[in-house]
Amino acid sequence: MKFYKAKKVVIIAEKILSSKICEIIESNGARGYTVVPAGGKGAHNMHYTSERASVVDDFSNVRIEVIVKNKSIAESIGSQVVENCFENYSGIVYLEDVEILRPDKFNGG
Amino acid sequence: MKFYKAKKVVIIAEKILSSKICEIIESNGARGYTVVPAGGKGAHNMHYTSERASVVDDFSNVRIEVIVKNKSIAESIGSQVVENCFENYSGIVYLEDVEILRPDKFNGG
Amino acid sequence: MKFYKAKKVVIIAEKILSSKICEIIESNGARGYTVVPAGGKGAHNMHYTSERASVVDDFSNVRIEVIVKNKSIAESIGSQVVENCFENYSGIVYLEDVEILRPDKFNGG
Repeated sequence: MKFYKAKKVVIIAEKILSSKICEIIESNGARGYTVVPAGGKGAHNMHYTSERASVVDDFSNVRIEVIVKNKSIAESIGSQVVENCFENYSGIVYLEDVEILRPDKFNGG
Repeated sequence: MKFYKAKKVVIIAEKILSSKICEIIESNGARGYTVVPAGGKGAHNMHYTSERASVVDDFSNVRIEVIVKNKSIAESIGSQVVENCFENYSGIVYLEDVEILRPDKFNGG
Repeated sequence: MKFYKAKKVVIIAEKILSSKICEIIESNGARGYTVVPAGGKGAHNMHYTSERASVVDDFSNVRIEVIVKNKSIAESIGSQVVENCFENYSGIVYLEDVEILRPDKFNGG
């Protein structure tokens, strides 16, 4: 089977933003995304406590990843999430290079 | 400490496929893997509902990652998972470049 | 918006090590990290059972990821975690290239 270059966008945000983020992802034509429960500390989220134990047990954030075929779509999703979701909430966005099988399963761009 | 280039395979699939996927991973000589609860939507899994809230709270999928030293083993795991697990179930597979410490902890290839 | 190159460190370890790992991350100047519940098998953790079903349902490990701007800080975190945490406990560390928005949200190095 052949592998194809693609871009992954990872968004770490408060759970309350999930719906808005998924809407942005879908409006950019992505055909799916994966959500994982997450916690953490610092600029990544709202937990500024120094109690590490509670940080590690509290999964009130989400880690959303989405793969798209085009770098420009990945950048568009990332920029739109930062602009529309992170003014009043903490969170981060980053991109990674990936190789995918079956590119027809991803966005058509 | 020295870092070495390696390949990561990420598989996002329905939980019911976990055992079969882990069997494929082990049969390719990988010495370990990591499983994380996951949810999502679209071609990534079976959730085709438009109710985003439920999608975000339902972690009935798994995100399995495995690191191997050889690109060919990574590609073999990826291809075998797609061929053997995703005919009747949704799911995705992708590869990423990583750098590891202590390469003796990973597959011997 | 502009994307900037950065490094991600991923640490998969037993939950009991979380506090020590987070301390190492913070002492290297990183401004945040993300924690996800994880399970697995093999050199990645303490689960050497052959019962795959239990492995998949038992999330007694953590997957911690942290993004820093400098490769040298990423390598320092990775090396210190291996040296200080993995002598008596299993676990892995790996690095990945990422592209970030808003670099001021990450370490200042």
